Amino acid sequence: MNLPTETDLASARERIAPWIHRTPVLTCDTLSHMADASLFFKCENFQKTGAFKARGATNAVMSLSEAEALRGVATHSSGNHGQALARAAACRGIAATVVMPESAPRPKIEAVRHYGADIVFCKPTNAAREETLNAVIAKSGAEFVPPYNDMRVITGQASCAAELLEDVSELDTIIAPIGGGGLISGTAIACIHYAPHISVYAGEPAAADDAFRSLGTGTQQYNDAPDTIADGLKASLGDLTWPIVRDHVAGIVPVDEQEIVSAMRLVWQRMKIIIEPSCAVALAAILTAKPQFAGQRVGVILTGGNVDLDKLPWS
Amino acid sequence: MNLPTETDLASARERIAPWIHRTPVLTCDTLSHMADASLFFKCENFQKTGAFKARGATNAVMSLSEAEALRGVATHSSGNHGQALARAAACRGIAATVVMPESAPRPKIEAVRHYGADIVFCKPTNAAREETLNAVIAKSGAEFVPPYNDMRVITGQASCAAELLEDVSELDTIIAPIGGGGLISGTAIACIHYAPHISVYAGEPAAADDAFRSLGTGTQQYNDAPDTIADGLKASLGDLTWPIVRDHVAGIVPVDEQEIVSAMRLVWQRMKIIIEPSCAVALAAILTAKPQFAGQRVGVILTGGNVDLDKLPWS
Repeated sequence: MNLPTETDLASARERIAPWIHRTPVLTCDTLSHMADASLFFKCENFQKTGAFKARGATNAVMSLSEAEALRGVATHSSGNHGQALARAAACRGIAATVVMPESAPRPKIEAVRHYGADIVFCKPTNAAREETLNAVIAKSGAEFVPPYNDMRVITGQASCAAELLEDVSELDTIIAPIGGGGLISGTAIACIHYAPHISVYAGEPAAADDAFRSLGTGTQQYNDAPDTIADGLKASLGDLTWPIVRDHVAGIVPVDEQEIVSAMRLVWQRMKIIIEPSCAVALAAILTAKPQFAGQRVGVILTGGNVDLDKLPWS
Repeated sequence: MNLPTETDLASARERIAPWIHRTPVLTCDTLSHMADASLFFKCENFQKTGAFKARGATNAVMSLSEAEALRGVATHSSGNHGQALARAAACRGIAATVVMPESAPRPKIEAVRHYGADIVFCKPTNAAREETLNAVIAKSGAEFVPPYNDMRVITGQASCAAELLEDVSELDTIIAPIGGGGLISGTAIACIHYAPHISVYAGEPAAADDAFRSLGTGTQQYNDAPDTIADGLKASLGDLTWPIVRDHVAGIVPVDEQEIVSAMRLVWQRMKIIIEPSCAVALAAILTAKPQFAGQRVGVILTGGNVDLDKLPWS
C-alpha cells in the first residue's frame, strides 16, 4: 500500500484550511499530575461540527472533481462523520445523503439535519446500513465518502497530528482513541513524515477491542455486536486502516466502561471542557496503563464533544 | 476615591503572573450569529480554581507584608473566592480560613478543603457570616481578604480585561456578570487606562438586581434574600464598588432565571466548554438586550466553570 506522502499531507492541509478550525492545545496540571506525565490535549471537541471528523470529510469533499461533486456525496454514520460530511457538502454547495441507524442519538440526528443533508434511516445492523446506502448511491450516483476506510479521509485526519506536532515540541508519544482506525492511521502517517521518533498509541474500549486483538494476533479480528458507551468506536478496522495500524502503531490499551466514564468526568470537572465518551478513551488509556507513559510528554487527541446533555453517563 | 493607576495595574499583573493562567479567548460562530455581533469569550472558566477569583485573591495575598502573611488570611465565601483565597494562601505557604454557609454547594466545599484551608461553617445569613468571620479574625489575627469590596482584589480582577484588550483588537464593548462588583470594577478600571472608548456593561440576575436598581435610581440599593441559580451573584455592591459602577459602567441588563439556564446550556452545547450559572449571565444579557450590542465587537468575560455535575439545572 502506498501511504500518503508529505506532499499529499501538505495539499490536504491547504485544501481544508479555509473550512476547519486550527484547534487549541490545552494542558491541565491536575491531569498531568495524575498521569505522572506531561499531557498536551489537542482539542478537536472545539473543531467544526464538534469533532475531528470535519477534517477527513472536508478533505474528501474538496478533493472531488466538478463532475463528481455535481452528483453529491453519501455515507453511513451513527453520528460525527455524518455531521462532518453534511457540513463539508454544504460548504461546497452540493447534496449529501446520510444513512443513519434509527437508534442514533437525537442531537446527532438534529445536527446532520441542521447542515441540510438528507437523512435516510435504517435498521441498526451492518447489512441494513450497506443495503440502504447502496440503494441511495444507485439512485443518485453520489460519491461514497466512508467514515474511515478511505485514503482521502485518512489524509484529512492526519492534519490534526500535524498541527499538534507544530504546536508542542519534543513529544514522546501521541495517543488517540481507535474505532475504525481513520484518525490513528492519519496520526501515524503524520508522525512518519514529521516526527518518526514518536510512538503512536491508541486507547480502545475493551467491549470493542478488535484492534487490540488484531495487533496481538497479527491477523485482523472483528467486533461482534459491541456494546460500549463509546458509540463512535464500535467499528472494526478496515482493509486500509488495519495494515497501517499493524505496521505503525506501537500499542493499544483496552479500557473498560467505568474507566471511560471516569476519564470523561475528570476532563469535564478539571479542564472545564465537554468531551464525549468515545473521546475519553485516550485519557482512560493513559490512566489505566500509567507506567507505559510515565515521565513522557504525551499528546492526547480529544476527538469530539457531541454529547446529549440530557443523558449524561453519571446521572 | 483614588482608583488604581496604570502602574498599580501593571504591578498587580506582574505579582500574580507566576500563579495564574493567561486564559485563552475563544469565539463561536453560532453564538456570534445568534447575537448578531462578534463575540470574544475570555475563558476564566479555565483559570486556576475554575474562576477569575484567583486573580484578585492572589493579588491580595501576594501583596501582604511578611508580618501580615504570618498571621494568615481569612474570608467568607459561598464558593469561588473561598477556593481562590485558599489556593493563593497555599501558594504563599500561609494559613487560610474560609467561613462558608452550611448550604454551600458540595464541590465548592471540597475544593476549598483540597487547597488545605480551614473551613468554618455558619448559618446562611449575613449576620452569622460576619459574626463567625469576626471571631476567626479576633482569634488568629488573620488578614481579611473580602470577596470584592477591596482595592487589592479589584486591581487583581482588572488583569482579566487587560489581557482581553491585548488579545482582541478594536472591541466596542466588554460585558461581565455583576454580583458584588469586583470584576466589573476591575474591568472598568482596565478600560479607563487602556481603552477609554470601550463601554463596559454588566449582566445581572433579575432576582438579585441591586446594581440595576442602584444605577437606575442613582442611589445604592440592596438585595433582600435573593433567590437565583446564579449563586455567585447574590451579593449587593460594596461601598468601593458602587461608586465605580455608578461612574464607569454604561448599563446593566437584568436577566431572568430561564434566560440564564438557556445561555448556560447554549455555551455547553455550542462551545463545548463548561460554565457555571453565574457565568452564563453575561451571554444571557447579550441575547436579551440584542439590539444594544448588535453589530459590535463584544468581549464577554466567562467568569467560571465550577458546577456540580450531578445537579445540572436542566436535568
